[in-house]
Amino acid sequence: MKTGIYESINALQHEMTATRRHLHMHPELSHQEVETPEFIANELQALGIEVRRGVGGRGVIGTIRGGKPGKTVAFRADFDALPIDDKKDVPYKSTVPGVMHACGHDGHTAALLGFAKAMAAIKDELPGTIVLIHQFGEETPPGGSRAMIADGCLDGVDLIFGAHVQSSMPYGKVFVRDGFLQAAEDTFKIIIRGSGSHGAEPQLGVDPILAASHVMIALQSIVSRNADPLQELVVTVGKFHAGEADNVIPSEAVLEGTIRVFNPELRQLARERLASIAENVARAMGATAEVVLEAGYDSLWNHAEAMDMVRAAARKTVGDDALVEIDPIMPVEDFAYYTQKVPGAFFFVGAKMADDALSFPHHHENFDFNEGAMAIAAKVFAAAYFEAQEM
Amino acid sequence: MKTGIYESINALQHEMTATRRHLHMHPELSHQEVETPEFIANELQALGIEVRRGVGGRGVIGTIRGGKPGKTVAFRADFDALPIDDKKDVPYKSTVPGVMHACGHDGHTAALLGFAKAMAAIKDELPGTIVLIHQFGEETPPGGSRAMIADGCLDGVDLIFGAHVQSSMPYGKVFVRDGFLQAAEDTFKIIIRGSGSHGAEPQLGVDPILAASHVMIALQSIVSRNADPLQELVVTVGKFHAGEADNVIPSEAVLEGTIRVFNPELRQLARERLASIAENVARAMGATAEVVLEAGYDSLWNHAEAMDMVRAAARKTVGDDALVEIDPIMPVEDFAYYTQKVPGAFFFVGAKMADDALSFPHHHENFDFNEGAMAIAAKVFAAAYFEAQEM
Amino acid sequence: MKTGIYESINALQHEMTATRRHLHMHPELSHQEVETPEFIANELQALGIEVRRGVGGRGVIGTIRGGKPGKTVAFRADFDALPIDDKKDVPYKSTVPGVMHACGHDGHTAALLGFAKAMAAIKDELPGTIVLIHQFGEETPPGGSRAMIADGCLDGVDLIFGAHVQSSMPYGKVFVRDGFLQAAEDTFKIIIRGSGSHGAEPQLGVDPILAASHVMIALQSIVSRNADPLQELVVTVGKFHAGEADNVIPSEAVLEGTIRVFNPELRQLARERLASIAENVARAMGATAEVVLEAGYDSLWNHAEAMDMVRAAARKTVGDDALVEIDPIMPVEDFAYYTQKVPGAFFFVGAKMADDALSFPHHHENFDFNEGAMAIAAKVFAAAYFEAQEM
Amino acid sequence: MKTGIYESINALQHEMTATRRHLHMHPELSHQEVETPEFIANELQALGIEVRRGVGGRGVIGTIRGGKPGKTVAFRADFDALPIDDKKDVPYKSTVPGVMHACGHDGHTAALLGFAKAMAAIKDELPGTIVLIHQFGEETPPGGSRAMIADGCLDGVDLIFGAHVQSSMPYGKVFVRDGFLQAAEDTFKIIIRGSGSHGAEPQLGVDPILAASHVMIALQSIVSRNADPLQELVVTVGKFHAGEADNVIPSEAVLEGTIRVFNPELRQLARERLASIAENVARAMGATAEVVLEAGYDSLWNHAEAMDMVRAAARKTVGDDALVEIDPIMPVEDFAYYTQKVPGAFFFVGAKMADDALSFPHHHENFDFNEGAMAIAAKVFAAAYFEAQEM
Repeated sequence: MKTGIYESINALQHEMTATRRHLHMHPELSHQEVETPEFIANELQALGIEVRRGVGGRGVIGTIRGGKPGKTVAFRADFDALPIDDKKDVPYKSTVPGVMHACGHDGHTAALLGFAKAMAAIKDELPGTIVLIHQFGEETPPGGSRAMIADGCLDGVDLIFGAHVQSSMPYGKVFVRDGFLQAAEDTFKIIIRGSGSHGAEPQLGVDPILAASHVMIALQSIVSRNADPLQELVVTVGKFHAGEADNVIPSEAVLEGTIRVFNPELRQLARERLASIAENVARAMGATAEVVLEAGYDSLWNHAEAMDMVRAAARKTVGDDALVEIDPIMPVEDFAYYTQKVPGAFFFVGAKMADDALSFPHHHENFDFNEGAMAIAAKVFAAAYFEAQEM
Repeated sequence: MKTGIYESINALQHEMTATRRHLHMHPELSHQEVETPEFIANELQALGIEVRRGVGGRGVIGTIRGGKPGKTVAFRADFDALPIDDKKDVPYKSTVPGVMHACGHDGHTAALLGFAKAMAAIKDELPGTIVLIHQFGEETPPGGSRAMIADGCLDGVDLIFGAHVQSSMPYGKVFVRDGFLQAAEDTFKIIIRGSGSHGAEPQLGVDPILAASHVMIALQSIVSRNADPLQELVVTVGKFHAGEADNVIPSEAVLEGTIRVFNPELRQLARERLASIAENVARAMGATAEVVLEAGYDSLWNHAEAMDMVRAAARKTVGDDALVEIDPIMPVEDFAYYTQKVPGAFFFVGAKMADDALSFPHHHENFDFNEGAMAIAAKVFAAAYFEAQEM
Repeated sequence: MKTGIYESINALQHEMTATRRHLHMHPELSHQEVETPEFIANELQALGIEVRRGVGGRGVIGTIRGGKPGKTVAFRADFDALPIDDKKDVPYKSTVPGVMHACGHDGHTAALLGFAKAMAAIKDELPGTIVLIHQFGEETPPGGSRAMIADGCLDGVDLIFGAHVQSSMPYGKVFVRDGFLQAAEDTFKIIIRGSGSHGAEPQLGVDPILAASHVMIALQSIVSRNADPLQELVVTVGKFHAGEADNVIPSEAVLEGTIRVFNPELRQLARERLASIAENVARAMGATAEVVLEAGYDSLWNHAEAMDMVRAAARKTVGDDALVEIDPIMPVEDFAYYTQKVPGAFFFVGAKMADDALSFPHHHENFDFNEGAMAIAAKVFAAAYFEAQEM
Repeated sequence: MKTGIYESINALQHEMTATRRHLHMHPELSHQEVETPEFIANELQALGIEVRRGVGGRGVIGTIRGGKPGKTVAFRADFDALPIDDKKDVPYKSTVPGVMHACGHDGHTAALLGFAKAMAAIKDELPGTIVLIHQFGEETPPGGSRAMIADGCLDGVDLIFGAHVQSSMPYGKVFVRDGFLQAAEDTFKIIIRGSGSHGAEPQLGVDPILAASHVMIALQSIVSRNADPLQELVVTVGKFHAGEADNVIPSEAVLEGTIRVFNPELRQLARERLASIAENVARAMGATAEVVLEAGYDSLWNHAEAMDMVRAAARKTVGDDALVEIDPIMPVEDFAYYTQKVPGAFFFVGAKMADDALSFPHHHENFDFNEGAMAIAAKVFAAAYFEAQEM
């Protein structure tokens, strides 16, 4: 059965490519997806798969109940696109100006649909239950996973798996890691309010540029002094805007930045230190600070036992040398919330284009990926499913 | 003769007001003056005064040769207007949208013409020679004084006097000071060039915001440590602009600011320290700094012996309690270049409006001044001239 | 009478020198003076002058009541010495190891005694009353002036004068200034308390060195941003001590420094800003700051009308070109408290040694001064007294 | 044979304890060891083991040649003591005032001698060769390992193992880690030279305290901006000393600190950034910086294949749940240089005292450890040796 399924998936490569390209031509922005979930739901229904629409808002859940008892295992693919103008010169170029699948979510969806078709075909022989989670809104907080979880997508689920194609990682490889895989993010805005005055009369005002500069520098101490050197943390200010004229002290300076971190306690510490530094340094300079913190996604934690199933699955379906153990990465992923609820693992599928000239990073206007990665993802999903049943 | 001249000037009050209001209705921007010098030159010629046009570009010089031997004494009035929209509701409101005599140069011109008329009438009895310097372009560097000096306006001049009406200072008073009266100014722009990177990967870039913040703070030491505490210096950064996104480290940060100072050596020190701080702090942080310095006017120095003539003149013509000794002020004035060449004094004539509701600062869109100040200025000029002849 | 008195004083030059050398050989430290006030009181009594001993602790007051009605005018001389070892090779070298009149107070005392002798001799002809204030403890806060004032030394006094010999200023000149002449001083100690930890585990402690460095730098803004550029202020940290080992983060860092300023409001502002910066910056860094401020002497203000009497007096007794108008100086002087109570003036008497090789700054172990300065001081005192009577 | 050897080692527990206590009573400071290597060499000779004395200076090498062909495997124990006064109240307390085995090197030596005795007893049956490296001077750079390596101690060696007892880690556990286990260290001293002046005249000097404070703060950026967030780095300043008086700006400020890091490239980067920051920030402030860097030990890297042998050995001899995978630690260890030459692994043996009241950290004056840890170390050595032969 197992070997058969991998061959079935291989045979679906053209179909997955067609599906992906259809989605690529009709991208929809996060939290504005209408046709995409409709398309997915229809595809699943056509396969005779039980479908629930509008999960958590715009999500779709398909359920394949195997003929034998077993674990309930979920697989997730996100389906939203980005506000980027597609500049590729390919027949399947986006037809929507300013919107593009520039992160591969079209591929995730097509791979999960291919996996669904192959597994549905043998559902009577299957132990356990497959839950197909087609998620909306991953690119833009608050994301879609928390809403779908709240709406029951993980009810009864024993394990969950997810995958992301990676255009910068070599094709034919599967990238894994226990523990933290992707960072948590918070964004912040610090508004330093002083008091404007003529540049020649600083004593009549409170210089917010100087106060904000002191804040900027003192923020460095969060990483250099407050964080355990063995734990990862980044605090970056990307914007510093104040003043309009060289000879006028303005009344306000604004810093905007980002916190990236894996450990939740360190994340909380960083938030508190940031607020304390901004408020107290501003006060020291006679100014005030307003700190606006927007919580981004949590960090993504891979459960080692679930990751081991991915490892075994990748060895079986891709090859003994397919696995690459990697360091954690700083970008965020709202898959994080699934593994806070049930054991699970998220892995990367190498999807670098054969032609280097066509290789671009994610979120680039020329982004594309090696479509063969979809079959790899689907096969690893299938093999991981069987590993999970044997647990 | 002397008493008679003051009465003559008093009698010219209406004429000076009419002249000032004519100019007020027809303002011309700095370095674009055409009709104003033409008007002045014609007025002087009508008085039988020797006129030289186009001095240093757009300036006008009138010369009244007295019938007796004596000193050659120059008097200067500036005649340019500002790019401000006149919002006053008066019959003599500016007729040129967006251009306004919002600093009183119209009054300076009218006062000098009144003085010229009164003095020209008695020229045969006068010892010495009067040089009337009608200057263009004071509001906007490079100003007009240096060009007029280069074109000979101070040739043969023994002493020079100038006055400025002040709408914030009480009418009926004359404000004097030996030594430095008005500051020198330089403007600067510091471009800190680092290297951009993703906010989560600071190690791949060089953070120009952090480098610029260090520069900003280190600049404070010029005033706090490098300047003699007994000498005035201000170094202000009025703009700090860097970055466009909270999660991207930009490649550049720009600081813009102003230096105000009286002492020329301290000015030079401040410039050198500023450049050294910017360049070396940037280098310390792995970045580079480009420092662009634009020299503004020099500081204005009043010669005590010339100022004493103004003091004596004011006591005689305005009253024993008319004099107010003041601290130096931070705004700039290109009269500075005249007293670098010949002894001279620049003083302020109180010109506060009788009605507080009509009192506005210079460069304000509702600016106006007490027109009685023109006669005061003209009389002090006259009395100072006689003081100079007795020197 | 007046001319006679100046000749009398000139004739006392040898006596004043003898007195000064006696005192020079027997110096006593501030607040430990016993023999010096005894000597002074005895001298005054020998002149038939009314004496009050133990004024404010160790001070001596002599009163010469003139035969005619008039103003009561005080003259002050301080008489304490310094903890410096006299290294001069002169017959009148200090006989007390480690104690020395290295600031000229011996000369002030001798000059005042000479002045007293000359004036006492003609007291019947004198209008008004002379109060001779021989003050202890000037070198060491809290000084002696406040205690003597509290004990009545200024009761009934209309005007006060004081003088200081200056070994760096040319002999034969008298140095004057209206308004602020000498600065106020506060000393401060900032104790930053963090929490110690191993240098490799900064996250377990709170780094007080980093917090104190931020405080140090932020303190610069008091001068660079909070002070009016036209007013003098210095905030200096002279000590920064923290830590004993390169690999241990200490629990404490200590900054010690001084504030020098003339204007009392600016002094208060500087104190408040210093405390606010230390406390809030420390808090921003997770530390605490204890700020200990010790108020030193107030700034010394010369009343212009009293100073004008000194000017007139110096012109008469020293010569028309004797006067030098000077900038204020930063050292402190507890004469400040007298002119807070009654109008008065403090001036400097040039006392540079004829031989440059013998010229040393005040407080130097080779300090000496031109003893001719004593007669100049006494004569200016006498002439100023007559000026005061004519007021 | 293998099971027998573990029992032999167990039987030697009392002998190892006696040896350790003898050494404990006769500690010798690093690089001053005389009796200790003599004692060790004599013990080895008494066991019939080939001995080489004075290796690299004070080291001792013993060689046990097995009767069968096989790998050459080295085992290292250090034998130097610390300048600490032993405060324990035990019969085996140090007899040398101020010198103490406060880090357990006595135990390392006794364990290696026990291991040697057990293995020598069965040498004819053994495959391969055992090299016993008794090393001097570990506590004090330059250490002893580099000198012994230079003197040939690793010649012909295929693999090396070492162990450290840990008084804070639970007894009965073995602590392992692939890759970096212990940090590299550099110590630095930054001398900032300005120019002294009176505290009231900062413009006459160059304030080294302000410059050093700027350096201190800018150093934070090495960790916060220049280091990859996924790599460990600490830069700590533990001393900041400048100035002696609150009102005098000193001429010099001195910072002393430590760098701790694992990755050699990051170490080099940190050194370069530190020097660049110090030199350029000092220059920016008009001062100069002298940076003295003393390289401490390199970071210690465990080869995964050797560590796996330790893992297998610990499971066999201590138990399946004996292994604890740990994070790297910041203290340094000059075993680092052995694994730069040959594959090897260094592990920790839990040696916490049964009685918590007797548990103290290493380098504490009451330090002691659970002596049972010696047999554990010796057995893991033995089992690792057999693992190595089977490689």
